[in-house]
Amino acid sequence: MAERKAFHVAVVGATGAVGQQMLKTLEDRNFPISKLTVLSSARSAGKAVLFNGQEHIVQEATPDSFEGVDIALFSAGGNVSKELAPEAVKRGAIVVDNTSAFRMDENTPLVVPEVNEGDLHLHNGIIANPNCSTIQMVVALQPIFEKYGLNKVIVSTYQAVSGSGTQAVEELYEQTKAIINEESYEPKILPVKSDKKHYQIAFNAIPQIDKFEANGYTFEEMKMINETKKIMHLPELKVAATCVRLPVATGHSESVYFEVEQDGATVADIKALLKDAPGVVLQDDPDNQIYPMPADCVGKNDVFVGRIRQDLDEVKGFHMWVVSDNLLKGAAWNSVQIAESLIKIGLVK
Amino acid sequence: MAERKAFHVAVVGATGAVGQQMLKTLEDRNFPISKLTVLSSARSAGKAVLFNGQEHIVQEATPDSFEGVDIALFSAGGNVSKELAPEAVKRGAIVVDNTSAFRMDENTPLVVPEVNEGDLHLHNGIIANPNCSTIQMVVALQPIFEKYGLNKVIVSTYQAVSGSGTQAVEELYEQTKAIINEESYEPKILPVKSDKKHYQIAFNAIPQIDKFEANGYTFEEMKMINETKKIMHLPELKVAATCVRLPVATGHSESVYFEVEQDGATVADIKALLKDAPGVVLQDDPDNQIYPMPADCVGKNDVFVGRIRQDLDEVKGFHMWVVSDNLLKGAAWNSVQIAESLIKIGLVK
Repeated sequence: MAERKAFHVAVVGATGAVGQQMLKTLEDRNFPISKLTVLSSARSAGKAVLFNGQEHIVQEATPDSFEGVDIALFSAGGNVSKELAPEAVKRGAIVVDNTSAFRMDENTPLVVPEVNEGDLHLHNGIIANPNCSTIQMVVALQPIFEKYGLNKVIVSTYQAVSGSGTQAVEELYEQTKAIINEESYEPKILPVKSDKKHYQIAFNAIPQIDKFEANGYTFEEMKMINETKKIMHLPELKVAATCVRLPVATGHSESVYFEVEQDGATVADIKALLKDAPGVVLQDDPDNQIYPMPADCVGKNDVFVGRIRQDLDEVKGFHMWVVSDNLLKGAAWNSVQIAESLIKIGLVK
Repeated sequence: MAERKAFHVAVVGATGAVGQQMLKTLEDRNFPISKLTVLSSARSAGKAVLFNGQEHIVQEATPDSFEGVDIALFSAGGNVSKELAPEAVKRGAIVVDNTSAFRMDENTPLVVPEVNEGDLHLHNGIIANPNCSTIQMVVALQPIFEKYGLNKVIVSTYQAVSGSGTQAVEELYEQTKAIINEESYEPKILPVKSDKKHYQIAFNAIPQIDKFEANGYTFEEMKMINETKKIMHLPELKVAATCVRLPVATGHSESVYFEVEQDGATVADIKALLKDAPGVVLQDDPDNQIYPMPADCVGKNDVFVGRIRQDLDEVKGFHMWVVSDNLLKGAAWNSVQIAESLIKIGLVK
């Protein structure tokens, strides 16, 4: 039996919401690790994290932290990635970056393995992990596109606060408690920590994720639009997005309208395609009230799809409801999955 | 100065979530009431409700309850309306019915005063009040339709639990408390009390409002589709809806995509139209993070619109975010507003 090669893996941002899930996912997948290096910004350095029951002290990430690292999983914010991912590459590491720093860089592949694993071959040291809300949508759209083509996508999202980090989750729970106890609570984190104003998220819905661009769309909406086209290799695809934050801790939901290119698609066909599609679990049985919900998806790697139905006016138009754990398929699992693909293809040795 | 005529008003379903708001709205509007009769199903009869500081004992609604009544506001469920609205009409009352019982009946006008007040002239004793999620959308669409025409609407809703009644609101709060205290809580009401399964609503999103029809759409979605066409007198309008319940007590939000018919519409035009539109408050200033949110709309009669932006692919396509208090403009206020219109037009004397 061939000995399985093991790798020196670094996790950058190990104390964050996604970093924690990355460690857990590496454990769950029994990822072939010879050495684990856990890194963070200066602020979190010195904290301890657990991996396979063993305590690891988080060190401040510096260029030299990446000496000897084979695979570096970054999730410590765009600025950390911009500064340190090239340093890691210089030292021979392959980087899987979960920030927006390199996603739209034309020399960086943006990869969802179920959709465009082959793009990994084009890497120059860095592979970008897409935005959470984009990933789950393209996993559901790709099998439909492959059979019927795709002209147009209009998505409205229902996004969980953990997409904004652990502080946002704490804010949701603390604020909820305060409201229930009729106490006051000053919002400080959501919708965007670094933006001017902060709003109540408990028992509310905030139609802002990330800051606004000059065109009236948020960066989150533009990410969904641009990343979908790049991942699916469909620069002409019409994509529109409205992104909304909900009082849900984990699990993004999406109401997706799409128009296929070819005639003849039926709901039964699309259900059959998605039933067998990689990474997808079909949950679609209205008679028995079976449909995906964020509360059910937490801790699972799959993308759950239901409520598939034909538009009543457009014969090529369909609606579906797509739910996934934004910290797993939306972030940590997709990153680890990319690392597994790199090993499988032989791009990291 | 002419003496203002006053009317004998009956409120049917006076103890419910909407009935309570009807009484409050009649008070707030200083509605010309000579006599108030508060009615309910047998289950709630005997309870006391307050009106202008005075206690009124709720009586079980029977055909004879409507003797001498001028205006009857019904909100006690479809079956009560089906049985008793015709009895009220027989006894000379004009009925404003807030249930779905008569909405799609071709002899019953379905009215949102900002949109089709003139349809009141066609009444045969009963005027139907549309579904909450429909009302706020058509108030925002009508001024756009009048200037630019309208081809297509695709809406995804973010609906509050009070649309399912006071028990649903209690369930949201009790369940939230239980989850925060790590106690168990058995869902009993949502998504649909009379349906087979009940699901957690706290920290979740449920893509089911009302039961499912055979075509895979829920009744709520079909209401939005059919009622929009009827109210706007646009039987050929393309309308699609996905309706989702959120852990929000009061205030429905909607992500609305629409395509106008004529060339030349701009975001600035649409903002200008909505700024002056009846019943609409424009809240649209992304630079200052101004947009509507359910937490801000509670207790207000207006429909709040923001996040207006042009689609990036369809020159005639636009997106907007529409929020309103589902118990007020979505129900009680629209019903009282219809009653005010009936008096103004001279249809009730």
